[in-house]
Amino acid sequence: MGRAVCYPARGLLLLLAVLWSAEGGKLLVVPVDGSHWLSMKILAEELGQRGHEVVVLVPEASILIKGSDLYKTVMFAVPYSKEEVAGNIGMLKDSVFHNGSHQEGLLINIERIKMFQAFQARGCESLLYNSKLMAQLEREEFDALLTDPFLPCGVIIAEKLAIPAVFFLRGVPCGMDRMAAQCPSPPSYVPRDFTDNTDHMTFPQRVQNLLSALLQPMLCRMIYSSYDELASRYLQRDISFQELLSHGAVWLLRYDFTFEYPRPLMPNMVLIGGINCGVKKGLPVELEEFANSSGEHGFVVFTLGSMISEMPLEKVNQFAEALGKIPQKVIWRFTGPTPENLSANIKLMKWMPQNDLLAHPKARVFMTHGGTHGIYEGICSGVPMVMLPLFGDQADNVQRVASRGVGVVLNIHDMTSQSLLDALNTVINDKSYKENMMRLSTVHKDRPIEPMDLAVHWTEFVMRHKGAEHLRPAAHDLNWIQYHCLDVICLLVVIVIAVTLVTVKSCAFCFRKCCRRSERKRKSD
Amino acid sequence: MGRAVCYPARGLLLLLAVLWSAEGGKLLVVPVDGSHWLSMKILAEELGQRGHEVVVLVPEASILIKGSDLYKTVMFAVPYSKEEVAGNIGMLKDSVFHNGSHQEGLLINIERIKMFQAFQARGCESLLYNSKLMAQLEREEFDALLTDPFLPCGVIIAEKLAIPAVFFLRGVPCGMDRMAAQCPSPPSYVPRDFTDNTDHMTFPQRVQNLLSALLQPMLCRMIYSSYDELASRYLQRDISFQELLSHGAVWLLRYDFTFEYPRPLMPNMVLIGGINCGVKKGLPVELEEFANSSGEHGFVVFTLGSMISEMPLEKVNQFAEALGKIPQKVIWRFTGPTPENLSANIKLMKWMPQNDLLAHPKARVFMTHGGTHGIYEGICSGVPMVMLPLFGDQADNVQRVASRGVGVVLNIHDMTSQSLLDALNTVINDKSYKENMMRLSTVHKDRPIEPMDLAVHWTEFVMRHKGAEHLRPAAHDLNWIQYHCLDVICLLVVIVIAVTLVTVKSCAFCFRKCCRRSERKRKSD
Repeated sequence: MGRAVCYPARGLLLLLAVLWSAEGGKLLVVPVDGSHWLSMKILAEELGQRGHEVVVLVPEASILIKGSDLYKTVMFAVPYSKEEVAGNIGMLKDSVFHNGSHQEGLLINIERIKMFQAFQARGCESLLYNSKLMAQLEREEFDALLTDPFLPCGVIIAEKLAIPAVFFLRGVPCGMDRMAAQCPSPPSYVPRDFTDNTDHMTFPQRVQNLLSALLQPMLCRMIYSSYDELASRYLQRDISFQELLSHGAVWLLRYDFTFEYPRPLMPNMVLIGGINCGVKKGLPVELEEFANSSGEHGFVVFTLGSMISEMPLEKVNQFAEALGKIPQKVIWRFTGPTPENLSANIKLMKWMPQNDLLAHPKARVFMTHGGTHGIYEGICSGVPMVMLPLFGDQADNVQRVASRGVGVVLNIHDMTSQSLLDALNTVINDKSYKENMMRLSTVHKDRPIEPMDLAVHWTEFVMRHKGAEHLRPAAHDLNWIQYHCLDVICLLVVIVIAVTLVTVKSCAFCFRKCCRRSERKRKSD
Repeated sequence: MGRAVCYPARGLLLLLAVLWSAEGGKLLVVPVDGSHWLSMKILAEELGQRGHEVVVLVPEASILIKGSDLYKTVMFAVPYSKEEVAGNIGMLKDSVFHNGSHQEGLLINIERIKMFQAFQARGCESLLYNSKLMAQLEREEFDALLTDPFLPCGVIIAEKLAIPAVFFLRGVPCGMDRMAAQCPSPPSYVPRDFTDNTDHMTFPQRVQNLLSALLQPMLCRMIYSSYDELASRYLQRDISFQELLSHGAVWLLRYDFTFEYPRPLMPNMVLIGGINCGVKKGLPVELEEFANSSGEHGFVVFTLGSMISEMPLEKVNQFAEALGKIPQKVIWRFTGPTPENLSANIKLMKWMPQNDLLAHPKARVFMTHGGTHGIYEGICSGVPMVMLPLFGDQADNVQRVASRGVGVVLNIHDMTSQSLLDALNTVINDKSYKENMMRLSTVHKDRPIEPMDLAVHWTEFVMRHKGAEHLRPAAHDLNWIQYHCLDVICLLVVIVIAVTLVTVKSCAFCFRKCCRRSERKRKSD
């Protein structure tokens, strides 16, 4: 007795927590198909492992979302086939290999995502109006919903079921996530999406960044216009995606400041960058042998991501030519026909254990398109990069990596086999790339708590407390005039003008009085 | 083999980390005397415990800073006695018990702190110009410096010794900490110090808050003017305290959002609210018996903090009268003469183990002046409060607590024994106070990592990496015109005006041309 932890009230609290944890919560997961699912799946499985009942909503035409022992899946019908989904995702990468003017970049990106979203909205609509399924979900009384708000369907479902939402994401186009979370992002040092700016900008870059900050939100609201309409119709009140987003309880953000430029955060933003590179398995025997056979030169890991399976023959030959000329071995994830000029040092694979390969001590360079999963796997394992961004946020991503001096960026359109060879040789032979990358890797991994534990804690927190109300800023209760104090500023300006006017008029009046008096005096004189 | 953790490079990194941790770092601590030291001491001891060499700089006239087995102390001479320090601190509480107009509050607070700082600056000066001691500190080659920047001396020493600084604080007056950290604080929902505003403001309150946001920084720079002069003279270049503050590597902030209103944070801000209530010991036998003898009614813990030892007899009698009328027992920390009307249920103590008392299951109410240490101890143990703020940030603190429905605020000037009795009865008998407090306490303690582990990690991080450069926003490299994009806005306004003028002039020109032509035509007709 005497020690506070033994007191009954404290014991009761602890017991309740243990009981809750033993019982576990009920979590509904509304994922985004494709690469977005790959890291969310790790969290869903971990939560299942920790005794929660995790239910994942899977569209019938899903490409990557599969079942697991650790979570349940609930399938729902969508008005399109798996092939159409593949085509829709393929549309995103259309014209990646067709050179266009640099200025078109932003508009093309936005237009592509808008078409992608409009297609996905059809699937969402068929889910929302599946009254049997929705009634079943309502009966289940979930404690929380986990979703990647890149696709807004989960956000609408959370609102309909009136359960708190945990967001798991790299970002929503044009910084809509930051706007919805009421997170200040001064355009003077927080670069906007698709601008190629860093956090250190010249005057013209700041002009461009401010204009982007002003225009992008409007452009990007267009991306989600089909969802705005769907949400308003379904929830039977006028509501936008951005407003729905603002109801999120906790934002699990898949980055940290070894990748992203330092900038303001809100209390309910939790950084979990690198969550995807925690779990490592050994390499298969054959691959381990190939990797070790690379000797002192080591090997290059090359992939352009899960969404690019084919590319023009000309590009394939350029890659094969350059990679054939380096002393390193190369493991190249490539699903197209084997190029004719393929050297013996290159091993083609339809799929490869990227994270485990990068963690191999002989990994010298990571050739990547710059998706955040791959970038974090490279950072975790300390492998410098040659980066060839293709679409979406990849140009922004690789620019962040390059600004740390841990990689080189190539434009896939202008690239020649010689420029690729030069880039590879630079990253391999200039020791600064490896040194910078090892430093970045050390800093990234020097953290007080693992990103997975953070993600699990905050998801459980939201389940336990039905939200995270104490982290919600009062800014959400203000309109933008109030938020920026424009009404107060107007009042102050009016007061200043009034005071100035009254002062000037009074002075003028006094002055005239004096003049008249002296005039009269002069006349009488 | 196979598992990534066994690879040599990774092993080497791990080994280096272990070696570093075994060797430990060297940390210089420049504390603030008085209650500020109480929680910093816990961190200093913990760091000593974990194998670091911790050196604490102690002024000869120190009141509360004592030696320990876990850290070394280095004494330095100051041009004043212990009594003068007590007098200087006493000056802060002067007129606490003399009623003044509410409007004077801000100016009195600022004036008092300015005088306090000017006094302390004399001690700082004698430390800085103690060339033998400073040379010794330089030779020691510390990895980092830990200080509470409420007194700027540590910040100046860090700059002189060119070592990274870790700040440990509740705040710097007038939000100078937030300004120095480049942390946005929209005045529309982030209440300014000494304003009594919450995060939900009416229009007049927003007017007051915006004016405070505009004026306070100027007023508060006055507080530190003696240090600005001292720093510039000592470092031999023109530098302000705010600029020195902006060089801080990591900010360990002694609050979280169960106490503070949710608002933006910067990447190098780490919330460690409640760090002081982690360590609990059992009560001494006599006190445990007294506490248990309180039966079902429980007991009240009453203290006005370490800085108030005496108060007017009238107030003492009011307290004694009200506390004598409740069925609870009372433990009252009071160093003055025993009041005549003291009831048997009240136990006076010169010092009391406040945290351990609050952790006792029979603790019903905490009567406090609203210092953050006490408030967090109350939150940790789930004890609702009756609060009597005296000076400094206490009015702001108690207002945050009251806004959560976990306590009642009394004005110590207007207080009568009846109003105190009413407040006590409200908090004891209205179950909502206890329920809200238990909820707040649960939320406060439901965290992924303990505040002490966070504080230790980030101090060690700064020691290991000689700073936390990756968390430093680029905003520090901009002047305020650039930060707010005023130059860009000017350019855009000029362009808009120019385009408008040219358009209007062109239209006018065309219009005149057309008119003339039609006039000529009419004439010729």
